[in-house]
Amino acid sequence: MIIIMEPSASKENIKRVVDVLTEHEFRVIVNQGEIHTVIDAFGDKTSITPGRISALQGVKEVKIIREPFRLASRDRKQEDTVIEFENGVKIGGANKPVMMVGPCSVESDYEGLRQVAFAAKEMGCEFLRGGAFKPRTSPYDFQGFEEKALKYLKQASEETGLLTVTEVMDSADLELICDYVDVVQIGARNMQNFKLLKAVGKCSKPVILKRGLSSTIREFLLAAEHIMYNGNENVILCERGIRSFDSTFTRNVMDIASIPVIKKYSHLPIIADPSHGTGQRYLIEPMTKAGLIVGADGVMIEVHHDPENALSDGKQSLPIPMFKDMMTRVNSMMEHLHYEKNCLSANVD
Amino acid sequence: MIIIMEPSASKENIKRVVDVLTEHEFRVIVNQGEIHTVIDAFGDKTSITPGRISALQGVKEVKIIREPFRLASRDRKQEDTVIEFENGVKIGGANKPVMMVGPCSVESDYEGLRQVAFAAKEMGCEFLRGGAFKPRTSPYDFQGFEEKALKYLKQASEETGLLTVTEVMDSADLELICDYVDVVQIGARNMQNFKLLKAVGKCSKPVILKRGLSSTIREFLLAAEHIMYNGNENVILCERGIRSFDSTFTRNVMDIASIPVIKKYSHLPIIADPSHGTGQRYLIEPMTKAGLIVGADGVMIEVHHDPENALSDGKQSLPIPMFKDMMTRVNSMMEHLHYEKNCLSANVD
Amino acid sequence: MIIIMEPSASKENIKRVVDVLTEHEFRVIVNQGEIHTVIDAFGDKTSITPGRISALQGVKEVKIIREPFRLASRDRKQEDTVIEFENGVKIGGANKPVMMVGPCSVESDYEGLRQVAFAAKEMGCEFLRGGAFKPRTSPYDFQGFEEKALKYLKQASEETGLLTVTEVMDSADLELICDYVDVVQIGARNMQNFKLLKAVGKCSKPVILKRGLSSTIREFLLAAEHIMYNGNENVILCERGIRSFDSTFTRNVMDIASIPVIKKYSHLPIIADPSHGTGQRYLIEPMTKAGLIVGADGVMIEVHHDPENALSDGKQSLPIPMFKDMMTRVNSMMEHLHYEKNCLSANVD
Amino acid sequence: MIIIMEPSASKENIKRVVDVLTEHEFRVIVNQGEIHTVIDAFGDKTSITPGRISALQGVKEVKIIREPFRLASRDRKQEDTVIEFENGVKIGGANKPVMMVGPCSVESDYEGLRQVAFAAKEMGCEFLRGGAFKPRTSPYDFQGFEEKALKYLKQASEETGLLTVTEVMDSADLELICDYVDVVQIGARNMQNFKLLKAVGKCSKPVILKRGLSSTIREFLLAAEHIMYNGNENVILCERGIRSFDSTFTRNVMDIASIPVIKKYSHLPIIADPSHGTGQRYLIEPMTKAGLIVGADGVMIEVHHDPENALSDGKQSLPIPMFKDMMTRVNSMMEHLHYEKNCLSANVD
Repeated sequence: MIIIMEPSASKENIKRVVDVLTEHEFRVIVNQGEIHTVIDAFGDKTSITPGRISALQGVKEVKIIREPFRLASRDRKQEDTVIEFENGVKIGGANKPVMMVGPCSVESDYEGLRQVAFAAKEMGCEFLRGGAFKPRTSPYDFQGFEEKALKYLKQASEETGLLTVTEVMDSADLELICDYVDVVQIGARNMQNFKLLKAVGKCSKPVILKRGLSSTIREFLLAAEHIMYNGNENVILCERGIRSFDSTFTRNVMDIASIPVIKKYSHLPIIADPSHGTGQRYLIEPMTKAGLIVGADGVMIEVHHDPENALSDGKQSLPIPMFKDMMTRVNSMMEHLHYEKNCLSANVD
Repeated sequence: MIIIMEPSASKENIKRVVDVLTEHEFRVIVNQGEIHTVIDAFGDKTSITPGRISALQGVKEVKIIREPFRLASRDRKQEDTVIEFENGVKIGGANKPVMMVGPCSVESDYEGLRQVAFAAKEMGCEFLRGGAFKPRTSPYDFQGFEEKALKYLKQASEETGLLTVTEVMDSADLELICDYVDVVQIGARNMQNFKLLKAVGKCSKPVILKRGLSSTIREFLLAAEHIMYNGNENVILCERGIRSFDSTFTRNVMDIASIPVIKKYSHLPIIADPSHGTGQRYLIEPMTKAGLIVGADGVMIEVHHDPENALSDGKQSLPIPMFKDMMTRVNSMMEHLHYEKNCLSANVD
Repeated sequence: MIIIMEPSASKENIKRVVDVLTEHEFRVIVNQGEIHTVIDAFGDKTSITPGRISALQGVKEVKIIREPFRLASRDRKQEDTVIEFENGVKIGGANKPVMMVGPCSVESDYEGLRQVAFAAKEMGCEFLRGGAFKPRTSPYDFQGFEEKALKYLKQASEETGLLTVTEVMDSADLELICDYVDVVQIGARNMQNFKLLKAVGKCSKPVILKRGLSSTIREFLLAAEHIMYNGNENVILCERGIRSFDSTFTRNVMDIASIPVIKKYSHLPIIADPSHGTGQRYLIEPMTKAGLIVGADGVMIEVHHDPENALSDGKQSLPIPMFKDMMTRVNSMMEHLHYEKNCLSANVD
Repeated sequence: MIIIMEPSASKENIKRVVDVLTEHEFRVIVNQGEIHTVIDAFGDKTSITPGRISALQGVKEVKIIREPFRLASRDRKQEDTVIEFENGVKIGGANKPVMMVGPCSVESDYEGLRQVAFAAKEMGCEFLRGGAFKPRTSPYDFQGFEEKALKYLKQASEETGLLTVTEVMDSADLELICDYVDVVQIGARNMQNFKLLKAVGKCSKPVILKRGLSSTIREFLLAAEHIMYNGNENVILCERGIRSFDSTFTRNVMDIASIPVIKKYSHLPIIADPSHGTGQRYLIEPMTKAGLIVGADGVMIEVHHDPENALSDGKQSLPIPMFKDMMTRVNSMMEHLHYEKNCLSANVD
């Protein structure tokens, strides 16, 4: 790390910083400038945090040199992580991007979910998604059908062969959820619920980790690091839009560039969620394509058999005919996409 | 609620909106403009969410008229909520603002905490705060001493008579925590951890709820609503800075105006946290005063017996002498402050 | 517009709002709810601004129904605006997207610009861009070669047949600039320099208007409206990234979804600027493709013959070989793109 | 500056960086870490910008050590800048904070302005403010009465002895404006209108520079630097709220902490503008006090003789009786405030 001292820092202040660093077995170089003194320290950052150094007197700023995520870092692992399922579906690397579709919430009646699942199957999608436990801003909103919904997902999976995804909100529910689905999801509002990250880190199913509403890319990768550090390396990142100053026309701003940025710094697969990323039905198709063309390993979208009566997120859910129509064009695009190893974007030809 | 239809909405679209609303026993008025049709609907919003309506075809936008928080709303309860503790300390209303001080993390040695507790007591503070379970962005950072830390807090409380506060990160730890401390705290990163909100809603201790990093005021009050809805009306809100585009000089932007805004719309007490709000030692004093002058019911600050060796947040922690020095001036200011019922700011004279 | 009254609003307050509105020939409907009164007003918003109404006593909120931009609105003009140049190049509608390339700043030596211009020509680009007057955050940074740079642009245009673009920073320079180039550009920092908008509104050249760093889409279209209102309908919007809380890996967040949003609400052409949108060389290609696939009418990128010695923005400028390489793939992609009238995204086949 | 190289940087890349720096007479120290090489360079940053270095191959990041503003920096000038007017009024340092009040726009009739001016005088305020040239988001909004308004300001000044402030939007109007008023103001939307900064830098009147909507503190001070660099050292900074993700209850987020931050890093006076900072009448008083208690050198607020009929910003303007009422309390607070040299906040006793 690099330590920039205040212009007013005394010799004692500087000596103290050097002493603390050498105690922790850092190699230290002190460079005295006209105004500021700069201290370069090379060593094992796990032995002392930058925060410890920045608390020392006379320290203006501590700058880390190396990204703080390790397991998630491409420095550690050059090749793309590929997650493979029993039925042969693969996420990541040079594989065809996967499609994860389904209603925001699984609803009281199985029939709707079945319709969506068969439409998804028909259009070549690999995953059925649906909420069983719902995080809701207001306590007065619908909170999910819990186990009943999990059973419906399982049933639809058995009928269609689709893999399934659902969100986990509490470590207490994790075991139950893992009995029913193939992939568990951590929602944006729980991206820094560290107890939950630890819990899914200990579970055997792959985890979709959604980017927090105002999470930086570094924090996002550190949240993945929490899961990996606890033993689960099968993390799928998901860009789902960030909060900005303008929510008049879109619910969030979808940070499409984060996809190639993350591909550069991490080996983990990353998918795009244009439904939450924009909150608008008419933007799902263009933003799905944008995600794919910059190299996303998959796309997650909300599809509902009857969006007008959806218990949540109806506004951004595609009705089945609109979904099929879009998938025809998206499938045609995917046939022309060419991914190359470590390439940051897809090519069309 | 008010429904603005698209210019392209058909008569059938409009009829459908009206039908859905009347089914749910809303009183409906349709106003046809030159370009847009506007539908005013008056009724019980719990019977149908705005999201359901916005999913109907031809709907451009749904605007809520009434704030969605109810239990937390000043419309429901005009007088300020006052939380009273067994030792007579009160938070809220026209009472003298409370001071909550202590280290970010309780550390391995009791002596440091004891020193801070006695300094706090000496300066007239009411609460000792300290982290036992720590939310940390990186898995490589210190995670807290858990029960050992809780015991230290209890011991310091017994020696000084101070009330105690600590953060809860998982509902599984809540019972344990409630055995040791007087107030539980929900951290910013868990503000929308709805399972945890529900759990503290069922507990008997007052709850400090910190505003999320990019939480709107409405979402903040709805998070409080979750706690109240589950049975616990003793919620203390805490403004601790929000994320902005500039973190060069301060860690967050402290939204001082949110304090009088919340006082206007809610009866709940609200405190200020300038330590997290700014992340800079030299800003604690001015921002403490700013919080108090706009009407905060208390201030929470990080004080450490040896910030240079703090296991977390050393940079923003006040050393004991600097804390005492500041408290002399803050206490003198508080003597001149006059709060009046429902007044949005304090007066000095 | 819709006026929501405070719960505490008196009958006199309501009457006053109604009186003011009817004076201005609005048709007014008053709906009394249990808690709030809602007033719908239909009429000519130019006769009275929402701000006037919101200042009346007892008014909680004024909500506009109709977007405040008119000339720029697709409601007024269904078909896409197409801007045609003397040499036959067209921007907008179903036309092939245009490419605008060149150095951030035109530099002291003509040779570098010539090399870029010929590379651009060779790769099928239509426009050469280059800064003559430079807006710089610090007064100590390079400010541009002014008329000398304009002469170089003209010379390069004559040698290659490329059209030219440069930024105008002051209405005093506008006449000079228009003598040399084909398109004038308003930079992001001047998006709400209303005097400058007025000036370019009176000039005969098409105008590229860059979105401000924290401009909402509505403000962006209203800035275009200023230009159109003053007589110039040839406005080309440009998405160039907005400011967010995270600038660690990218300079800005490129709001790719704003392109299809603007296509829905406005008939004006819109281009993408991935150089400023990301600030990173390696992101230019994926974000160029993302812009094109969602329907951008063109892309503007920074290319420099020697980025290491560029007087500005070297970090985000493509060197010529990297540019040619990328254009081979982008041209191949463009051959497969199919635009349809009013379609929000392009299709590949 | 500090240069962090990519892990993949070659020896040639490193040598190239060193060569470029030594050519520009920097003293260079190269530290090779296990993964990254770090280069410390000490020298005159005006000879080469960080941007030039970051464009070199293999450079991951360039970190400046010294803040880029110089004339505005407290490193250059320890004592507070105090601006003194002919009538003895002083802004900055240990002087009593000044109050600048008046309507957003000067309106067609002189009488209203006269009433505000006399109320301001009566309450001990020093400045009358009022817009003559108005920046407006929409071209359909009122644009100001220009010279007529300037004449009214002059007349009110002559009748009351108050000093006057008005905004300049175009360098072409500057001479005219300087003939009429004592202080010229640069609005938030023009904070990076560098041509205008240059123009006011050459004028003899003190300048109020408002912080841009999404301007960082560093950019804000660099904008002041532009003015000072062009010859005018009498710059008064103004915190007027920044744009955030939440504009439901306040128009902007007022960054109160920026006041003590700027006091630490710059010697320039800084004032607070709670009218634009919050956009809400009821927040003017608490936020005025918050600004004063953290050390603001003055406060600017909008007062109107008839806010209901104001041509702009009526919602946030105080009517005269409310203004007088508030000033009674603010004056009483100011009597108890004690400023000390370089102190970051005021004390009350």
